[in-house]
Amino acid sequence: MSGPTVAVIGAGISGLTMSKMLADYGVEFATFESSDRVGGNWAFGNPNGHSSAYRSLHIDTSKHQLSFKDFPMPEEYPDFPHHTQVKEYLDSYADAFDIRRKIEFENGVVHAQRHPDGGWELETERTGTRRFDVLLVANGHHWDPRFADKPGEFTGLTMHSHAYIDPRTPYDLTGKRILIIGLGNSAADIAVELSSKTLDNEVVISTRSSAWIVPKYFAGKPADKYYKTSPHIPFAWQRKFVQIMQPMTAGRPEDYGLPTPNHKFFEAHPTQSVELPLRLGSGDLRAKGDIERFDADTVHFADGTSQDFDVVIHATGYNITFPFFDEDLISAPENHIRLYKRIFKPGFDDVAFIGFAQSTPTLFPFVECQTRLVAAWLVGRYAPPSEAEMERVIDEDQHKYTAHMVQRPRHTQQLDYFLYEYDLRTREIPAGQARAASAASAVAR
Amino acid sequence: MSGPTVAVIGAGISGLTMSKMLADYGVEFATFESSDRVGGNWAFGNPNGHSSAYRSLHIDTSKHQLSFKDFPMPEEYPDFPHHTQVKEYLDSYADAFDIRRKIEFENGVVHAQRHPDGGWELETERTGTRRFDVLLVANGHHWDPRFADKPGEFTGLTMHSHAYIDPRTPYDLTGKRILIIGLGNSAADIAVELSSKTLDNEVVISTRSSAWIVPKYFAGKPADKYYKTSPHIPFAWQRKFVQIMQPMTAGRPEDYGLPTPNHKFFEAHPTQSVELPLRLGSGDLRAKGDIERFDADTVHFADGTSQDFDVVIHATGYNITFPFFDEDLISAPENHIRLYKRIFKPGFDDVAFIGFAQSTPTLFPFVECQTRLVAAWLVGRYAPPSEAEMERVIDEDQHKYTAHMVQRPRHTQQLDYFLYEYDLRTREIPAGQARAASAASAVAR
Repeated sequence: MSGPTVAVIGAGISGLTMSKMLADYGVEFATFESSDRVGGNWAFGNPNGHSSAYRSLHIDTSKHQLSFKDFPMPEEYPDFPHHTQVKEYLDSYADAFDIRRKIEFENGVVHAQRHPDGGWELETERTGTRRFDVLLVANGHHWDPRFADKPGEFTGLTMHSHAYIDPRTPYDLTGKRILIIGLGNSAADIAVELSSKTLDNEVVISTRSSAWIVPKYFAGKPADKYYKTSPHIPFAWQRKFVQIMQPMTAGRPEDYGLPTPNHKFFEAHPTQSVELPLRLGSGDLRAKGDIERFDADTVHFADGTSQDFDVVIHATGYNITFPFFDEDLISAPENHIRLYKRIFKPGFDDVAFIGFAQSTPTLFPFVECQTRLVAAWLVGRYAPPSEAEMERVIDEDQHKYTAHMVQRPRHTQQLDYFLYEYDLRTREIPAGQARAASAASAVAR
Repeated sequence: MSGPTVAVIGAGISGLTMSKMLADYGVEFATFESSDRVGGNWAFGNPNGHSSAYRSLHIDTSKHQLSFKDFPMPEEYPDFPHHTQVKEYLDSYADAFDIRRKIEFENGVVHAQRHPDGGWELETERTGTRRFDVLLVANGHHWDPRFADKPGEFTGLTMHSHAYIDPRTPYDLTGKRILIIGLGNSAADIAVELSSKTLDNEVVISTRSSAWIVPKYFAGKPADKYYKTSPHIPFAWQRKFVQIMQPMTAGRPEDYGLPTPNHKFFEAHPTQSVELPLRLGSGDLRAKGDIERFDADTVHFADGTSQDFDVVIHATGYNITFPFFDEDLISAPENHIRLYKRIFKPGFDDVAFIGFAQSTPTLFPFVECQTRLVAAWLVGRYAPPSEAEMERVIDEDQHKYTAHMVQRPRHTQQLDYFLYEYDLRTREIPAGQARAASAASAVAR
């Protein structure tokens, strides 16, 4: 019995991991990648323009938490690998499992048309139209820049963190008055880098919600080594615990001159930075609240103050974008897309999504456990529940993972890796297996 | 009755504070400064060459601990002021107490000759020979670079941290293989700065003794706010306490890839750096142990490995140097100079030293309390004990402050500010007052 033909869109972390799992399961597939290389976001300077990595970027997850479960990072890697090392790791992963031969490089999917009789017609860059039974979407969600939407026009240089490489690339950011919008990890990294006294910049960071800052190390160990949500204790209690502990270890944002957050600790994705509190506390960097409007080279802040700048850097995150889908078929307005277990779109039995979540504290093992479910589905050993049940569970999961969080585009797909992995391994996959078996025996009867 | 005529050498922190205290006490004095400005080490780019400040330098003491007791730092200053702010503070201190008019700028003391009948003949840069009864030495001890003494010759660029300004000044330190010798605060700051991935350097730090790294912040407050040695609990017990606490909060040096220290926490001056553990843990910076020898552009390490470098930066501290004294009169070989309360040299009744200590955690208030004793001495309200008693106490104090420390030139003048200040205020000044009064009444009888 031959299974469905499968197309994977993208050979970044998600597409690569998916491809590896499909090969493991003996599924026939082709992976379409617009670039000439694997790695997506982690391929610094990726010619397809989909990498947001800057020269100094280190991953904010320690290698202990980051490694694929079946492919540990090299012993000699530092705790927090540089992007070049993450890329090397993904390359060696692709080589070790001989995945490259299944990837069609420089052959991105331009358009994906759902066929009336089921299945997909893919218009590809190099190889014309191709037909597949199932489509696996793994094109990532960290490449389409989202800009802060504020009234007025800024006449200086406007750029997005996506384009930032280093203080001299692509623009000379020395001796400038620079405003950075946002307080996520990229915003913090770039603010720290540009506020070095050696560059002679005046740097201000503007944040609407403020953020809790967490360190990369605690007591000499990567801080995320301590992070392990238990599925056996109510999530809310565990949140309460860290809400009490955080100020005792890392302090409150106001201690460093940040605005008071509009949320408690863990009600928004915290920002991981060792250096930001130091730079704020040293006066090299100043923090402001929300922006009211732009007016030529002046920025008016919500607190009534204003200041002139040469450069505004939007470090305000990314849109979830599917450029190959017709928007009325599948899209994610304001980053909202309802996916069952962040994988299945109710009403579609021939498409699955991989990697569309903001998984805390780690991404790679999260993707790995998603691909395990998808592969089981493709070989008939997993079936999703009914559409109505899917809709119910989407609401339930969304509540579990994000109800306590500030409702913002950046939090629409937040989830806790440990709870998610436990759910899939102990509940969802066995339940889907039972559903698949009962459907098969129903057919057989 | 007119008191002695007094000369102060230097208008850095020590000379400035001394001058202010002399003015407060109504003592006649002149301050000789080789530069055209006050501030000494904190006058960035000081034309007299005596500043070791680099462009990005922030003081490692928080403003709360650093301020003079009678002149708090401005409210708007950050927790850890930049060197430009420390300089501004010293300028405003000089202005507030009208000290500048007493300072002879660009008129350094070239030679100080002790007159056979007592008093000093000073050869000055601009004003010929000047005669004073008492000499107050405040020429600082962070300006004469001490280099690591290793066999062989390094043929690449050799420089000292004293000369380091920024990654492009005075040398282009980008795209280079750089070895930094030392693991003190300057070594850590420079290693962090040069190992930024944006500069494309390969940076290695070599340390003979290794070091315990302490953060600038703990629980959102400047870490030194928690630092308060009690004079009422044995010093050794307090050391024991921090020795237990340190690994629980900041970890052990080995956690970050540093060599195992040859000492316990607080047995050597700890290194204060937020960023060093991060850079080591991110692999941007590597640490090695001691150097065995140089050979052309190769550095051989004690562990048997070797590596080629373009640049070697000695961040190995400073010599205590008195260029105006004949060496056989007063000098500090290997940074050893026996001073009673770090002020009086036994056998000399007409000279005092100000600022010659490595005071933890703060320098300015330490200098302030030294100058209080010196001013009292000059107006006859304090007398030091006998020479023999001074010698005995020097040994006792040296044991108290440094016996537990690694015996190295950098630790010869280590002391604990809180214990020192308590000792001067509650014991030494009252005792010296009693000695002065009893001497006066003996003369009167």
